[in-house]
Amino acid sequence: MISHRYQERLGGCSRLMKAAGLDVLLLTKPANMFYLTGDGRLCAYAMITQEGQVALGVPMTDVEDVKQLAHFDHIVGFEDEVGMIHSIAHYFEHFGIQKGVVGLEYTFLTQSMMAMVTHPHAKPAGVTVKDCTHIMSELRMVKDAEEIDRIGAAAKVAEAGMKAAVEAVKPGITESQVAAAAEYAMRQDGAEEFWRTYVSSGPRTNIAHGLPTLRKLQAGDLVMIDVHPIANGYSADMCRTVCVGKPTTEQQAAYDLYLKAQQATIAKARAGVGMVELEQTLHGVLKEAGHGGHVFGPPIHGVGIEFEESPLPPGHAFFHGEKEPPPLEANVVISVGNCGLYTGPWGVRVEDTVVVGPEEPMVLTGYPRRLEKRRASS
Amino acid sequence: MISHRYQERLGGCSRLMKAAGLDVLLLTKPANMFYLTGDGRLCAYAMITQEGQVALGVPMTDVEDVKQLAHFDHIVGFEDEVGMIHSIAHYFEHFGIQKGVVGLEYTFLTQSMMAMVTHPHAKPAGVTVKDCTHIMSELRMVKDAEEIDRIGAAAKVAEAGMKAAVEAVKPGITESQVAAAAEYAMRQDGAEEFWRTYVSSGPRTNIAHGLPTLRKLQAGDLVMIDVHPIANGYSADMCRTVCVGKPTTEQQAAYDLYLKAQQATIAKARAGVGMVELEQTLHGVLKEAGHGGHVFGPPIHGVGIEFEESPLPPGHAFFHGEKEPPPLEANVVISVGNCGLYTGPWGVRVEDTVVVGPEEPMVLTGYPRRLEKRRASS
Repeated sequence: MISHRYQERLGGCSRLMKAAGLDVLLLTKPANMFYLTGDGRLCAYAMITQEGQVALGVPMTDVEDVKQLAHFDHIVGFEDEVGMIHSIAHYFEHFGIQKGVVGLEYTFLTQSMMAMVTHPHAKPAGVTVKDCTHIMSELRMVKDAEEIDRIGAAAKVAEAGMKAAVEAVKPGITESQVAAAAEYAMRQDGAEEFWRTYVSSGPRTNIAHGLPTLRKLQAGDLVMIDVHPIANGYSADMCRTVCVGKPTTEQQAAYDLYLKAQQATIAKARAGVGMVELEQTLHGVLKEAGHGGHVFGPPIHGVGIEFEESPLPPGHAFFHGEKEPPPLEANVVISVGNCGLYTGPWGVRVEDTVVVGPEEPMVLTGYPRRLEKRRASS
Repeated sequence: MISHRYQERLGGCSRLMKAAGLDVLLLTKPANMFYLTGDGRLCAYAMITQEGQVALGVPMTDVEDVKQLAHFDHIVGFEDEVGMIHSIAHYFEHFGIQKGVVGLEYTFLTQSMMAMVTHPHAKPAGVTVKDCTHIMSELRMVKDAEEIDRIGAAAKVAEAGMKAAVEAVKPGITESQVAAAAEYAMRQDGAEEFWRTYVSSGPRTNIAHGLPTLRKLQAGDLVMIDVHPIANGYSADMCRTVCVGKPTTEQQAAYDLYLKAQQATIAKARAGVGMVELEQTLHGVLKEAGHGGHVFGPPIHGVGIEFEESPLPPGHAFFHGEKEPPPLEANVVISVGNCGLYTGPWGVRVEDTVVVGPEEPMVLTGYPRRLEKRRASS
């Protein structure tokens, strides 16, 4: 029964492989392996043939665990790196692929990993390599009902994390301790894992990737909190900005403006909309108010197995090894508000996970959007 | 004063660059940038010339923050990926490097990142590329007194995390909730960040990378807990295995054997010892007891800015793009016990962070090493 889901996905994969002229995929990125087989882990690989055959290679310690989790036709446990390389060669031989093209994940493989999986003892000399990033992105872009349920469940976990973090905000506590509150609550509430939590405060709210530090919150600080729990293999992405005390008039105005821009963008998240239109809507509202120079980075991206995945706006997609995304279909899930309004001394941001609807968007992350912190407890 | 440290490191870097025929480094790996400049972050780069000049490129939002943290000669804030590429070209021109060799981090750069930093609009056509991984590994391998202090401080944080996790262990709690206890305690105790926490239980203690799941602990389960806090930019690495209740005779015997192997290996961590000798010591004790087939992965690795860094045993080093490490000098910091004894139905492991001493090893992680959990609270 479970295998049916993977057979359908493998069928789609097969069609895209044929169109791209790929005879086999050699995947090592956990998120891609998870999508096509039900299990994704580091230090392992999945070979996928055009006929939808799945051959897994995993550490010999992990064979029984993977057998219980994954859809596959063949599995081998290897003892070490040499064993891994030889097992890849063995599968090439088993599938009768001695020439042709193998698809590799150019957006995941480092130079040294690339050298390993294309080692002469792994890949037949007659087989050439090609990027398969766009195939996996295209496959994973539109979510099915169960995937949306899982992202929705992760969004509820994100809300629990945000609530705990906002309640923890007070003068004297470190950014790291605010992150601790969020992460602890998310694990209690059903997250098996999370992507790195961002917490920045005061002047640090202006930086692009505000990982937590030991900086202590001070009265009057803005605090930006961005959480990304993983529940049942799927992620959500939510950011809120709150103030330690009362924001200044300027801060409140910037916040209201950003929220207006974000909400205007979310309102357009309907089937057929392009990523460029969404990006321009968000930036347009800021620009019109004189903040055109205060933006940085892609304000929208996909959400799914990863908290940040395809689609990306075309300019960013290009430089991150992805193809320009087509107009969005219904059931693509995106985050809106990935990048904030950075005024220089401080920044503000609100981010939500949103399902692109056939008619209307559906916002999955529902934590209140207000800058001034209302004490919720203690 | 602070700059003195970086000037010394840059001097060492310069000597290695000359020996390797590299005219300039283009670093994007945060750990390497942090070592040479005092700041390392994603979405940024550092160019290091043979003369020790440091040119940074960071998101325009981050310029003021980096200025306060980093040692540098030039800094530029870029608006987007195109701006980043052009700023790299600008630095090549500024330094007068239109031919020669640029060192890149082959163990960090993905294929797509590689394409970006070597884009024709970034890198002059006359400049060729070469891996600089071994230069950064060699520079970072022997720690100075302040680095050892920081790793020691991280080790104390790891102990606080382990104590909280072990106290949380009881039937009915999920692996993720055990991880939550460790992470929360580490952030309260001074960690600004941590690398992913591993918690595995029952049959999952046999797998190579036991990331936490929603599996609930059961009476009689072994539980493997591996923590890696970051405090003041430096990491520690510690693993303990405990039992939910009383271990079986077989489990206790396997644990005692592994601990004996680990302690015998630590005893050899003196200047002049080779990674092969350390690896063989640990595996030798297990092999002699008939468990030679129950090992997987490198049992020893370096610890520093990253919880897992160079040196690696030669076989693993080769496949991970690193050079075979020389005999260890005093003040190399290693973790001993990175991989466990995997019997099939379950595994055991004990891991500590250890300073290679001129005469005697110094163990930095001191949490008790015993399998049977003694209730410490509640």
